[in-house]
Amino acid sequence: MSDASNAPALVLVNREDSLSRRPREARREPVLDPLANVARANGVDALAERLDELKALLADDLMQIELAIQGIDAEVRERNTDGGAPTADGQLPNADARAANADGCAPSVDGLLARRAARQLLDRPGKRIRPLCVLLAARMGGRELDSVVRNLAVACEIVHAATLLHDDVLDQGEERRGAATARLIYGNSASILGGDHLLVEALKLVDGANEPTLLRSLLNVISEMVHAEAIQLEQRGRFRPERDVYLKVIHGKTAALFRWGLTAGGFVAKLSADSLGHLARVGDALGMAFQLIDDVIDLEGTTAVTGKTPLADLREGKLTWPVIVAAERDPALARDLEHHVRGNASDDLAFAKSLVERIRATGALQVTRAYAEQQGERAAEALSHLPPGPARDAIAMVVRDAIRRSK
Amino acid sequence: MSDASNAPALVLVNREDSLSRRPREARREPVLDPLANVARANGVDALAERLDELKALLADDLMQIELAIQGIDAEVRERNTDGGAPTADGQLPNADARAANADGCAPSVDGLLARRAARQLLDRPGKRIRPLCVLLAARMGGRELDSVVRNLAVACEIVHAATLLHDDVLDQGEERRGAATARLIYGNSASILGGDHLLVEALKLVDGANEPTLLRSLLNVISEMVHAEAIQLEQRGRFRPERDVYLKVIHGKTAALFRWGLTAGGFVAKLSADSLGHLARVGDALGMAFQLIDDVIDLEGTTAVTGKTPLADLREGKLTWPVIVAAERDPALARDLEHHVRGNASDDLAFAKSLVERIRATGALQVTRAYAEQQGERAAEALSHLPPGPARDAIAMVVRDAIRRSK
Repeated sequence: MSDASNAPALVLVNREDSLSRRPREARREPVLDPLANVARANGVDALAERLDELKALLADDLMQIELAIQGIDAEVRERNTDGGAPTADGQLPNADARAANADGCAPSVDGLLARRAARQLLDRPGKRIRPLCVLLAARMGGRELDSVVRNLAVACEIVHAATLLHDDVLDQGEERRGAATARLIYGNSASILGGDHLLVEALKLVDGANEPTLLRSLLNVISEMVHAEAIQLEQRGRFRPERDVYLKVIHGKTAALFRWGLTAGGFVAKLSADSLGHLARVGDALGMAFQLIDDVIDLEGTTAVTGKTPLADLREGKLTWPVIVAAERDPALARDLEHHVRGNASDDLAFAKSLVERIRATGALQVTRAYAEQQGERAAEALSHLPPGPARDAIAMVVRDAIRRSK
Repeated sequence: MSDASNAPALVLVNREDSLSRRPREARREPVLDPLANVARANGVDALAERLDELKALLADDLMQIELAIQGIDAEVRERNTDGGAPTADGQLPNADARAANADGCAPSVDGLLARRAARQLLDRPGKRIRPLCVLLAARMGGRELDSVVRNLAVACEIVHAATLLHDDVLDQGEERRGAATARLIYGNSASILGGDHLLVEALKLVDGANEPTLLRSLLNVISEMVHAEAIQLEQRGRFRPERDVYLKVIHGKTAALFRWGLTAGGFVAKLSADSLGHLARVGDALGMAFQLIDDVIDLEGTTAVTGKTPLADLREGKLTWPVIVAAERDPALARDLEHHVRGNASDDLAFAKSLVERIRATGALQVTRAYAEQQGERAAEALSHLPPGPARDAIAMVVRDAIRRSK
């Protein structure tokens, strides 16, 4: 009863709007625009802005990433005529740049210039560090910025953006308890649909690369991310300062996507299996370092700087490395931290602030910075096995910047 | 500077837990179990149950679907010895079955037996109508239930389940305004992560079929679903009883996944492009009919039966066909409906009930049923171009049951 024959590849998609819809078109974005409108109409302005920004990412931002990266080449070509460029004997023009190269890598002119482009990206809202990883890994393998590399880079960033949107709903514990229900509901709805939309768009972009391996590995990475979030949610309201729980969560939540970005870029540039393994280690170390420094910044900043209630994250199940170290070093503090986590939102702000002071007093922030530096060394070691050149230098600088940043 | 070589296919996935994790393993499900625990601990019992059920779907339920489908054959083989089977001259044993075949299709013994199996599935919680579509379409092309067909069937059901979980958060407007914030937050968090997890698991299952076309088309379908939800969210709090908005939403929200299920089953059974086109029309008509009947049931039932406040969905932007028809027929009613939608939750329940009565009085429910019947005829017409046999008969019965059901 079979009428088997060769079915054409795309017959399953028989609705034209599915086929012709492209995420980067300039016309009204079919999902993000209505969601931003909903958010705005309900006073969820920050979300509306974020959705608009994401639309820009899909539409225009990539262009700017392109220009910045292309700028690496342009600056390299112009290095002998540029006033700020190194002298003819290859000396670096200022001490700052020399210091940035002081950790054993030979100072490189290309690297310095690449660094400017990298910093330009890193300084932008949201840092765009993930797409940069994709682009630089591809460049390391000699693949220029073409549509495949560009789409992988954007995919990496919008997976990150999708998780941020869903996190908005997961993280509403403290700050949104006081919000009006309608605002909460519209905000949640727009965040969920926006996140779903971006996730699917990212997968479509990767699918467009026609490398089933990449799509499969991204699906696995998203699984890891969701799994990590589930562990975190389960920890909420508990205080279990365990190193292995923390490491499991940040490997999944943060490091996995960095790892994917670097290996995906290297993969389409046909780097060897060995090189991809080294890139994976770089990504893992970079992701860990990035998260560890985030942990430090959270506890270094005052409420005014970070815009958060001190230790609010802890209540949401977000264990940080300094908290674990401090709890190990000071059992009385551990008990008070547990009390804080199990308490309610109306707890004394002064108490939370005193806890932060006591965490700092244990030296936990220094320990955490040192741990991040260790990840930086791990990344540098892995990088040393990779093809030298401006792309490798730029990745090394991305790692260093991630560790030395203060915001 | 490239060290290009043949990179092995899976080098990107260098974390063993990503590779070895299989959704259907019996051990602790890494995401759904913790989420169900979180929901239970916070008094969101219905959600905890749903998550447990979904875990069962991933683990065991499919086995039961298999048995039921294999049961079609068994019953067919035993038809001459089974007491309830048709007589030797091929007459159907009872009037009910004859009536079920009264819409022009020749009564078929195989069909009758297939119908039992179909009904067995349809009567189960959640109906499992989507995986059934996949299995029957594959069977129509002569492909037996193997791991590929099974995985596509499960994928289709869990995409549906994922959207239900996310809808839980989107739909909390009326019923959850009164809920405690903590419950709301934990419930939302578990729903979001559970939905994300299932979506990724579904895509992985389809990826495992090694048919890029199927994965691509499913991504497009999910896009359509998200797009439809966004339109609906934008309509919330407004009253625009427009037919084209409604049709756009249900095509995306409901019909797209039925279409995918049928065409995916047919595709892996190597049905011709023509046949896949016909299956797509069947899926579209079935999805529309399904939604139209849902609309009718919502307005036929009392609050006690459906467990919902009358017209609560309408406030959440969910336009239904009977409401559109009633608003067209009775302008005074249209104004009152608008007032209801723009009002707040504390509005008089009696007023909402009177609106439902007035909608019924316009004859809108009959019009909607007739429209669903029309979709049934469209499906039957499309089916007539497909290979005859028990699978085709069973699909026809699924369509008829979807239209004639009363819950």
